[in-house]
Amino acid sequence: MKEIAKGIWKLTYQTPEKFTPCSMRKSKIAVEELEKIDLEVCQKLPFEEKEIILKTTKRGVTVSIPMQTEEDIYGFGLQLKSINYAGRKRHIKVNSDPTVDTGESHAPVPFYISTAGYGVFVDTYRYATFYMGTNSKKGASSSKKEVNQPHKEFSESALYSLKRAKEQRTVIIDIQGAEGVELYFFAGTVKQVVQRYNLFSGGGIIPPMWGLGIWYRVYGGSKEEDVKKLAEQFREEQIPMDVLGIEPGWHSHSYSCTYEWSSLFPNAQDMIDSLNQNGYHVNLWEHMFVYPAAPFYQKLKDYSGEYEVWNGLVPDFATKEAREIFSDWHRVQFVEKGIAGFKLDECDNSDFNPSNWSFPDTAEFPSGMDGEQMHNAVGILYQEVIAEAFEKQGIRTLSQVRSSGALASSQPFVLYSDLYNHKEFIRGIVTSSFSGLLWSPEVRDCVNETDLLRRIETVIFSPLALLNAWRIPNPPWKQVDINKNLENIWMEKQEYYTKQCRKLLELRMSFLPYLYSAFIEYQRKGIPPVRAMVMEYPDDLEVRTIDDQYFFGKDILVCPLTLEDGMSRKVYLPEGKWHEFFGTAVYEGKAWIEVSAKEEEIPLFVRENALIPLAKPVLHITKETVFEITVLQFGSGEAEFILYEDDFETLEYKQTGVKGIRIYRKENGVVEILDKAERYRFL
Amino acid sequence: MKEIAKGIWKLTYQTPEKFTPCSMRKSKIAVEELEKIDLEVCQKLPFEEKEIILKTTKRGVTVSIPMQTEEDIYGFGLQLKSINYAGRKRHIKVNSDPTVDTGESHAPVPFYISTAGYGVFVDTYRYATFYMGTNSKKGASSSKKEVNQPHKEFSESALYSLKRAKEQRTVIIDIQGAEGVELYFFAGTVKQVVQRYNLFSGGGIIPPMWGLGIWYRVYGGSKEEDVKKLAEQFREEQIPMDVLGIEPGWHSHSYSCTYEWSSLFPNAQDMIDSLNQNGYHVNLWEHMFVYPAAPFYQKLKDYSGEYEVWNGLVPDFATKEAREIFSDWHRVQFVEKGIAGFKLDECDNSDFNPSNWSFPDTAEFPSGMDGEQMHNAVGILYQEVIAEAFEKQGIRTLSQVRSSGALASSQPFVLYSDLYNHKEFIRGIVTSSFSGLLWSPEVRDCVNETDLLRRIETVIFSPLALLNAWRIPNPPWKQVDINKNLENIWMEKQEYYTKQCRKLLELRMSFLPYLYSAFIEYQRKGIPPVRAMVMEYPDDLEVRTIDDQYFFGKDILVCPLTLEDGMSRKVYLPEGKWHEFFGTAVYEGKAWIEVSAKEEEIPLFVRENALIPLAKPVLHITKETVFEITVLQFGSGEAEFILYEDDFETLEYKQTGVKGIRIYRKENGVVEILDKAERYRFL
Repeated sequence: MKEIAKGIWKLTYQTPEKFTPCSMRKSKIAVEELEKIDLEVCQKLPFEEKEIILKTTKRGVTVSIPMQTEEDIYGFGLQLKSINYAGRKRHIKVNSDPTVDTGESHAPVPFYISTAGYGVFVDTYRYATFYMGTNSKKGASSSKKEVNQPHKEFSESALYSLKRAKEQRTVIIDIQGAEGVELYFFAGTVKQVVQRYNLFSGGGIIPPMWGLGIWYRVYGGSKEEDVKKLAEQFREEQIPMDVLGIEPGWHSHSYSCTYEWSSLFPNAQDMIDSLNQNGYHVNLWEHMFVYPAAPFYQKLKDYSGEYEVWNGLVPDFATKEAREIFSDWHRVQFVEKGIAGFKLDECDNSDFNPSNWSFPDTAEFPSGMDGEQMHNAVGILYQEVIAEAFEKQGIRTLSQVRSSGALASSQPFVLYSDLYNHKEFIRGIVTSSFSGLLWSPEVRDCVNETDLLRRIETVIFSPLALLNAWRIPNPPWKQVDINKNLENIWMEKQEYYTKQCRKLLELRMSFLPYLYSAFIEYQRKGIPPVRAMVMEYPDDLEVRTIDDQYFFGKDILVCPLTLEDGMSRKVYLPEGKWHEFFGTAVYEGKAWIEVSAKEEEIPLFVRENALIPLAKPVLHITKETVFEITVLQFGSGEAEFILYEDDFETLEYKQTGVKGIRIYRKENGVVEILDKAERYRFL
Repeated sequence: MKEIAKGIWKLTYQTPEKFTPCSMRKSKIAVEELEKIDLEVCQKLPFEEKEIILKTTKRGVTVSIPMQTEEDIYGFGLQLKSINYAGRKRHIKVNSDPTVDTGESHAPVPFYISTAGYGVFVDTYRYATFYMGTNSKKGASSSKKEVNQPHKEFSESALYSLKRAKEQRTVIIDIQGAEGVELYFFAGTVKQVVQRYNLFSGGGIIPPMWGLGIWYRVYGGSKEEDVKKLAEQFREEQIPMDVLGIEPGWHSHSYSCTYEWSSLFPNAQDMIDSLNQNGYHVNLWEHMFVYPAAPFYQKLKDYSGEYEVWNGLVPDFATKEAREIFSDWHRVQFVEKGIAGFKLDECDNSDFNPSNWSFPDTAEFPSGMDGEQMHNAVGILYQEVIAEAFEKQGIRTLSQVRSSGALASSQPFVLYSDLYNHKEFIRGIVTSSFSGLLWSPEVRDCVNETDLLRRIETVIFSPLALLNAWRIPNPPWKQVDINKNLENIWMEKQEYYTKQCRKLLELRMSFLPYLYSAFIEYQRKGIPPVRAMVMEYPDDLEVRTIDDQYFFGKDILVCPLTLEDGMSRKVYLPEGKWHEFFGTAVYEGKAWIEVSAKEEEIPLFVRENALIPLAKPVLHITKETVFEITVLQFGSGEAEFILYEDDFETLEYKQTGVKGIRIYRKENGVVEILDKAERYRFL
């Protein structure tokens, strides 16, 4: 075991595979940043190297690590079904519709964090299985001899409920198909392990400021004129809006794709130009399966996989040729012409839905990768290909992707899903934060007006504030019912709901500088801008299973409600004083409280002695946007917040850095702005 | 490729694995029976040997077989979620709660049948994946160039619906972890392929006659006296009942088990004797995980797997020692003392429920098997161990098991499940019939009285007529509501529902000779006693997706209703004339009809020119039972039915054979009984 950076060790076992996240990575380990953080914390793992047992069998490599019964386990990428994996299995297989809690997801990651003070990353694209203390070794229970104890409950759920056993357990990692492997161990608290993993992955991204604004995906049946009309309508109605996403219909053929404009968009460039002039950023839907009529089909054929998907080629993004063909086409045809980002659909896989699309695990690719590896890798590879088109132009993007995986923190992409349970979408915000992933709980179909508001309340406190109206030609605040929306029939109270939605979207816009600063911390320190409570309060046993409250930026605890919750919910406040953001009440923590919230309200709590810079909401971000900032104060102790500024959109910060503006308050003092700002004006 | 029996070829590729269904099988191929059947049918496969492509990669062995777009695909063992796998994946992994349609189930089998006239069995215990024409080879679509076609529907379900493509497809079989493999190919129609597979597996079982009677699993909290009281009550109330099943509470410790009577059953032997005297057969619940207090724990320790399950040892049934320890204990302690069968629970596995119990796939076993192989094998191995205890006594059993797999037709076990959707339970009857499996859609919790009747109607026309009352101390016809049943509060119309249930159970009893004869055909010809319609009418495209009608014995088409159906359903009748069993109507087939059925009625249709021997229902089977038979006649053409008789309970038939009694009718003639019967009296 070799220490490769501060608090990070590598263990190499026999001959690792050729295609792994680390062997294929483009990002570099942020070694300097790793040196800077957490000088005071424990740099040791809670077990000896000799306790890690590695074996090779015909199936592959098996790793065993001792596990104590009190350890709680987090990570494994985006997980929509549960948060704490102590006593459970996780199967790291990318899958588009994981309707059951197996570990499969759009973005599973072979990385976990234990509350025992360590994390493990397994450098593999194989469908590894992690048994997180599901079993004890033979004989561990031999002293048990209780007999004739009465059975208490007779139900299936009682029989198979998860019980925490008292015997010494084992973490077993099953890496089928591998002959060797590299493991990375990270020391520290839950948060420190996450930081180290993110910096090991290259640090977090800095999004363009417009990417933090409001996103809207337009109706799938839209023509050019419809998009322009909608864009004008948003401005007229003073609805904040930064990004318009255009769905499959822009391709002259989709499922699979041509990457050329269809006859529905006869003057596409005019449309893009006019949208851009009007302050919009345009995002285009696509997937990677290349239809025979696509202009680069023939060129790509030799650099694509053995089987077709939806009649299209599957590019082998592990070859330089396929990367270049794809990336260059996107740069020249779209990025240079004003397109700001893409939505990369269906780069996951499907076992659970009827059509079982995508390529087989056995598929051979020219690079030498097989289908299994490609499935777990392609989300990341595809992101790199598209990101490169922007990097060459020197501009940032923030784009969408439906699959991601290991070492993702430096990819300018946010995950989304077709699945649609609101509680699970909130849980996704929490779980994705452990593994360098960003997740958007997009607003899509809504049962009713309350559901619409509740879902918007969640999405505005997530990494990406996305409304996806692909099934409806009019905004949901005019009509939530799909069929009526298609017939342009408005809801009775559409004016009222337009106003409430506008207010919530404005609330998002007012948090942009605050959130942008959180992203700078993500890049520099690896601290996720939106994150699980257990990262902040790792020793509070109460927070270890909380999957419906989370931190947004430095000091705000978000407690969303869903339609099912009605107008109130339970909230847990950890140690310390907590201030209502919208109200004036102050609570003493380490307590559960009942919180009421009208349909247009979301409970936010602020930590004692926090300064929250709030902007006057703008309708959209421009090159010249200067935010008018009011600093909200909570508590009366010493307090500090650093706002960051730069051009908010290019990659120049990589050379010049990002400037920090220090907002400071002494105990019982007034707030002072200690640096000069250009993009902020303090009120 | 080598013809190993008539219409069956074996293909050996490189070095097959040591542990496979064929290498470990105890049953013998029924070579003589294979010679006898289907003299006239096609003995060819629809492709050349050279079209079967086998490859070895680091992942394992990959097999490709050409597939035409019009082929329909059946098999893969028990499948509760769908019936036809053309265009879909099947993952052959045993799993206790397959809530999604991946192929995983209690009893997945690496065997499929194509309507193109062949079947394939892959001799592996690995979690193989079958891609049944999900993909075309790269370039198959290169001539497609349609662009600017309008998109029609905007919904997730439309996007991912299963569409039958027009390009040449491929069957891809992914056998991870294998270095070589043996494949078996079967020629013929769907039914002939199933027959050949079943005879290849050793032929079907002949159950004891009592096993075809009514089964009842008593309340989990029952004490000895409760069981005896219930047994008396059934006799008093004239409820037909052959088998009483006792749940986990009989063990002095369960989860894991001791295989010794608990203090709830202080005079167990008296109870067994008195139940046996009263004509009951007693079945005991268990699973294979051996608690430290079990008397043979120490003896078994060296012959058990690396990890514990529920604090218990996992016996390695691939070792002679573990088989003997386990089998001998069961023979001496139970079989010799009057126990007639067992319910083998939790020999499947769990990925989908919260506790993720059972051993890891990586677990090592003393025999050399690994956990993955053991999971797919253990259902069968466990059945063999228990069956052996009865074989040594020279008596038959019919028992229950929650997991099965390849080559299962000669195992005297019927599958069951915790899952409980009625439509899926009916589908299980249909799908299990393709792969040598017997399945019981057991009656368990019921929403209301109608649900109870509907579920009984299904179960009495299945291989095992099982009522599972493990959660309720009183029979469900007294109270379907669990909580009220626990409080001994009867339903208002309990007398009425007792009568209706009794009538349905009597209906089952009247079909016993008819069903027993179907089992003889199962043993001799491999024809499943209860089976999918496509086996009888393979060329009728309409039946290829029917998963809620099936054949029961030779000539009866069963069309159960569920609570959701209400009081009528659509029924498809294939070519020919069809007679109502209970009514007098005659229908011309090749047509869908709407059929009404009151809550206590199940629609049955009889083929033209069928003779159905119906028995006067008895309350239970004894050594002396002589059935009083009425032969029902349908149509007026030439007709025949063979009733079989023997001692109905021992294994003597293996030496002496089973006697056939020919019932015959000439065209327009009277029914004649052409052989002398001892166990039947014709009225």
